[in-house]
Amino acid sequence: MSATPRLHVAPDLAAGETISIDGDQAHYLSRVMRLDTGDAVRVFNGRHGEFAATITEAGKSTVRLMLGEQTRQQAAAPDLWLLFAPLKKDRTDFVVEKAVELGVAEILPVLTERTNSENVRVDRLGRLAVEAAEQTERLDVPPVREAQKLYPLLDKWPVGRTLIFADEAGDETGRPWGGDAGRAMPLETALREMADGPAAILIGPEGGFSGAERTRLRSLPFVRAVGLGPRILRAETAAVASLALWQAIRGDWRPV
Amino acid sequence: MSATPRLHVAPDLAAGETISIDGDQAHYLSRVMRLDTGDAVRVFNGRHGEFAATITEAGKSTVRLMLGEQTRQQAAAPDLWLLFAPLKKDRTDFVVEKAVELGVAEILPVLTERTNSENVRVDRLGRLAVEAAEQTERLDVPPVREAQKLYPLLDKWPVGRTLIFADEAGDETGRPWGGDAGRAMPLETALREMADGPAAILIGPEGGFSGAERTRLRSLPFVRAVGLGPRILRAETAAVASLALWQAIRGDWRPV
Repeated sequence: MSATPRLHVAPDLAAGETISIDGDQAHYLSRVMRLDTGDAVRVFNGRHGEFAATITEAGKSTVRLMLGEQTRQQAAAPDLWLLFAPLKKDRTDFVVEKAVELGVAEILPVLTERTNSENVRVDRLGRLAVEAAEQTERLDVPPVREAQKLYPLLDKWPVGRTLIFADEAGDETGRPWGGDAGRAMPLETALREMADGPAAILIGPEGGFSGAERTRLRSLPFVRAVGLGPRILRAETAAVASLALWQAIRGDWRPV
Repeated sequence: MSATPRLHVAPDLAAGETISIDGDQAHYLSRVMRLDTGDAVRVFNGRHGEFAATITEAGKSTVRLMLGEQTRQQAAAPDLWLLFAPLKKDRTDFVVEKAVELGVAEILPVLTERTNSENVRVDRLGRLAVEAAEQTERLDVPPVREAQKLYPLLDKWPVGRTLIFADEAGDETGRPWGGDAGRAMPLETALREMADGPAAILIGPEGGFSGAERTRLRSLPFVRAVGLGPRILRAETAAVASLALWQAIRGDWRPV
């Protein structure tokens, strides 16, 4: 809980400078929050850390801010991407909000064979990401990429980035995990065995991945298929659970 | 994804018996799902495992099922409770749904000084829990208890149950964790140091716990104050993240 409103802004930031805010943000500050000349806010732009600021002009369409001291230095988020198959509107919104809170660096909607919805409003999701970043005290806003098809994305996968594939469907053979045939390794075990480095988590649609997609994913050297316990998780639950475990074991929840 | 509908029912279950279902469930089966005589379902009651069943009569107000083979034996869920301060309606619903998916044994709404909503519809949340249990392939439905005030609940806390307290507000001193003065230990570290045994996770309201509540909690021998990383998490995110970490490190996500 923080009393001082916190805003993501576009301009460069430096102590003593004045910046202008217009459009929806100006409306929000002056009409919704009812802030006025002399009121304090905090601003960040994803490049120059966070600054204290004071409102010097509170118009309906333009708000001017005088920047005070830098309150936090810019720091990089952990290099973790979330790839997820779009769900129904509310659940997609939820995944984006939670991904921002859980510190992902990029959000990539992925279209799979059984994707529940192909109607991805990237601009709207981007605005949701900004709001979530403001609330969660992040210093950056992770971009929400245009939706891409799974196979082309795998074909141009960046060297050195591990893709953690939540294989919810699992393998019902009851065999110990390992290789193409076995059950997926528990996520916690996989994270513990993994080296630090760039990573991505892939969450499928409600209907799961197709057999062909699972085979393809498991054949790729940069993919680690993992399991998330004995119960069936909804896609958004799998996303939040996986991101939290990654941050706790490989990310910035670790003690410094 | 499972093609065969799965229902939580009240009667005792044994192979070869016939049971009757009425009310909303009968309506759901015969009118919403449009199932008819001869169609297959699965049933569980939280006591006798899961059974295959065949519809022998599909009326609007009563559906009769003939029970076939037992498909799964009853197994206990991990002994983990979730205590959470009720949030706005949608977010409370979300917490209950996710707690069921993440395998908690009991759900306890707790009223704190800054609780956002005291209007807890336990009956409605109980129905949500049933639906979530049906979907997530659980063999039991965790009860949703009546809302209780925090201090009386702490006063009669059961012996031997660790209370993991997500101290989101943390301690901004920057000191290493430990004791009353320091920062909360990262949840992952705390879970790793903990013995196996009954546990509960306590998540506060959006406004956080009051200073008095935090001091009281930290003074109790069965409480472990834990931190959830450098960003501010919404209450429902903290709940899902904590439950997932507990299951991964102390619960039934571990390899058997």
